Amino acid sequence: MPSADGTIDPRRFIADLAAAVGTRHIQTDEDVLAPLLVDERRRYHGDALAAVSPADTAEVATVVRLCAASGIAVVPQGGNTGLCGGATPRREAPSVVLSLRRMREVRRIDRLGRTITVGAGATVAEVADAAAAASLLFPLSFGAEGTAQIGGALSTNAGGTNVLRYGSARALTLGLEVVLADGSVTRLGRGLRKDNTGYDLKHLFVGGEGTLGVICEATLALHPPSRQRATAMATVAGAAEGLELLARLQEAADGRVSACEWLSPTTRRLACEPPAGARDPFGGGPESLVLAELTSSRAGDDLRRLLEEVLAESLEAGVIGDATVADGTAAAERLWQVREAPPEAEKRAGGSIKHDIAVVVDRMPAFLEQATEAVEAILAGVRVNAFGHLGDGNIHFNLLAPADGDPHVLLDNEERLTGAVFDVTESLGGSFSAEHGIGQRWRHELARRTPAAAVDLMRRIKATLDPDGILNPGKVL
Amino acid sequence: MPSADGTIDPRRFIADLAAAVGTRHIQTDEDVLAPLLVDERRRYHGDALAAVSPADTAEVATVVRLCAASGIAVVPQGGNTGLCGGATPRREAPSVVLSLRRMREVRRIDRLGRTITVGAGATVAEVADAAAAASLLFPLSFGAEGTAQIGGALSTNAGGTNVLRYGSARALTLGLEVVLADGSVTRLGRGLRKDNTGYDLKHLFVGGEGTLGVICEATLALHPPSRQRATAMATVAGAAEGLELLARLQEAADGRVSACEWLSPTTRRLACEPPAGARDPFGGGPESLVLAELTSSRAGDDLRRLLEEVLAESLEAGVIGDATVADGTAAAERLWQVREAPPEAEKRAGGSIKHDIAVVVDRMPAFLEQATEAVEAILAGVRVNAFGHLGDGNIHFNLLAPADGDPHVLLDNEERLTGAVFDVTESLGGSFSAEHGIGQRWRHELARRTPAAAVDLMRRIKATLDPDGILNPGKVL
Repeated sequence: MPSADGTIDPRRFIADLAAAVGTRHIQTDEDVLAPLLVDERRRYHGDALAAVSPADTAEVATVVRLCAASGIAVVPQGGNTGLCGGATPRREAPSVVLSLRRMREVRRIDRLGRTITVGAGATVAEVADAAAAASLLFPLSFGAEGTAQIGGALSTNAGGTNVLRYGSARALTLGLEVVLADGSVTRLGRGLRKDNTGYDLKHLFVGGEGTLGVICEATLALHPPSRQRATAMATVAGAAEGLELLARLQEAADGRVSACEWLSPTTRRLACEPPAGARDPFGGGPESLVLAELTSSRAGDDLRRLLEEVLAESLEAGVIGDATVADGTAAAERLWQVREAPPEAEKRAGGSIKHDIAVVVDRMPAFLEQATEAVEAILAGVRVNAFGHLGDGNIHFNLLAPADGDPHVLLDNEERLTGAVFDVTESLGGSFSAEHGIGQRWRHELARRTPAAAVDLMRRIKATLDPDGILNPGKVL
Repeated sequence: MPSADGTIDPRRFIADLAAAVGTRHIQTDEDVLAPLLVDERRRYHGDALAAVSPADTAEVATVVRLCAASGIAVVPQGGNTGLCGGATPRREAPSVVLSLRRMREVRRIDRLGRTITVGAGATVAEVADAAAAASLLFPLSFGAEGTAQIGGALSTNAGGTNVLRYGSARALTLGLEVVLADGSVTRLGRGLRKDNTGYDLKHLFVGGEGTLGVICEATLALHPPSRQRATAMATVAGAAEGLELLARLQEAADGRVSACEWLSPTTRRLACEPPAGARDPFGGGPESLVLAELTSSRAGDDLRRLLEEVLAESLEAGVIGDATVADGTAAAERLWQVREAPPEAEKRAGGSIKHDIAVVVDRMPAFLEQATEAVEAILAGVRVNAFGHLGDGNIHFNLLAPADGDPHVLLDNEERLTGAVFDVTESLGGSFSAEHGIGQRWRHELARRTPAAAVDLMRRIKATLDPDGILNPGKVL
């Protein structure tokens, strides 16, 4: 509580927090706090008075109330794997880092209705494991799934490699328990497939990046498990041909195309560069690559036959140049290694400027052409490492320094390069952050590149739900 | 504009509206207004100063600004097919009925990305027709689709028979253009599959029933067309067995189960009662019925074989009693006639009290048992006409007067009967309005049966977006 003169007594505040969560569950030691005060990509550094780990929703509510009463910011932090600094406290605001890791209990699994109710502190992989133990699939899957917590994944509306078939985190969210800025607790949604009883406010908190409330528990949709999987890689001249292949696959396999990932020629070369790179299944070449995967909950081999059929038709039609269908799990794994190689390859190449853009899919070829031209005009020889979720219209358009130049030249031009990429994106009606969110990284871009009326509406919602700006300040808006 | 003493001059106000939309597009004649002032089910009757039909979003904005300046309510009305009086003006508030029917242009179809951008005044069927002309499927489908407009369908988050596979209206909404209460225009969402740039506020307007803004244009997801369809009907002992059959179908057919509809024994009898009823494919019987349909965008007959296989396995396992697979389109049509017969059958039986409830699917058998017991305790002999979207956990639990009693006894007990049904629903964690929404009909139930903190949050959102209560007052909250 602030004292009579309006200042707060930090020792008193920490003591109140300790009383709320138990002394063992509050950390104030600098060494313990240090890893919580920097983001995954080490771009943002912050300060915090303490990190607290409540045991349940009631304790979260108490923590939020105590912070609100003292004007201390609450910064929810899950696995701290976000790419935009959304979970890193800011130096400007006295903050408490709020971890929900102790709240990771699976509360209910409804096998017939295929839902799971789980505490926000469970990792994405733990949710998937609990679902698998009940012979069900939790499809959200991305690189950091072993560390990222479900509360963070929902707060950032995480995507990943299965969005094409199952949607982003939002599409899987059937109900939430949320603590609001005043410490009140509310349940939004009843965990049902259909429920039209008033405004569906859970969608404010999915993708809200912890700025509107703290997600404490979620009821999530599950799916039948995959009992059959067919994976192939094909060479295509460019993104347009990749999209044509995808269209054929989707018509043939209905909703059973789980993944359709694309690697540009530069990405292919980097990803498969010896000695550390993955193995190019075609022994290298100038084309781009598409990795496609079909899955089914019915055991059998019909998907493989279907995939072979579509690939043969596409070969005959000149849509693809060559193709290989994985013969078993190990072979499929090797194809996925090609797709998963780019992040490490970028590190080996001296680092990158990352962009996570989306456009309407039929504008993807135009985007790639125009954005490449735009960055080359700024920095001759810049390498465009473009790859990603072609089927979602979502490409990671990452930039590397010229191969034989000074690596610093890249970061020296970062602002102009990013501005050029985003200008092209905007001119094509696209999004400058398809799945990574806003955090601290893109808030100025949000203000600039989103219609003013929409940003104004966001600000009004924020002011209504968090009038004192207690929740994760300096993020999103 | 209000005059100096704060009153408005209705003639001046009408003249201003006429200037905004053109004299031809404003109606004040009582006879013309009459059908707009009563709801589909003739439960609600209202008044209006005028009905206006703007030509475009700018004119909608002008109308809203004029109404706001004069303190006149704006009541958006699409096809006026809603079941809860959400589009009927109220006598308490001087109102203008706003029709967007002139705004029904298809603005863009993206074949490869499978999206359509359309004015809010297009009917659901017109959107589907435009999609079909581009060899694509707009899957939203329900009885009133020929009249219901897409703006209303989104504002009520409409469901229907394809939700199981494609989701409700919300799941198809990729972007909106909305006029807010102050007459400002905002675009929410860029029509992309992935876009994490700030709060996703379009979800406030989907299901907002016109109380937070007026949807003027929408970008909607399309799907590959159905080129193969397999339809079957089976007899099952009850809902539990119906759910077991559905689980087997879903495991076998992945996402390709488009519909799984259930008819209770009473519904089956009523639906197939000669002379006006549909033809019972099994010649009658005491079991309930399941209608299941698989669809695929790939031509062939594999779905039919798959369906026959699952039905044979289910028969052997004792899950179903008997089954028939439709041999061609006409036969499938006859099975659907059984499913579509209940509304007319209810009218022939003297009318009904309708409930549109949802529970987690594994609680459906418990709901049916407990709710039936509860209504029978209130009105001996009451007939429970329970049928609907079993796969979504959404049942229309409708009540008919006892067969040989006074028909008035039903409506005399309406409040108690509905209260009992909703009490059971609530005790099982269910929703009292799964797809029909709130409108005028259920606003008191919303206030009573939704967690107070959630209702409070809805009120705060409403107060933020529409501080003067201009937009569709007396609905939802």
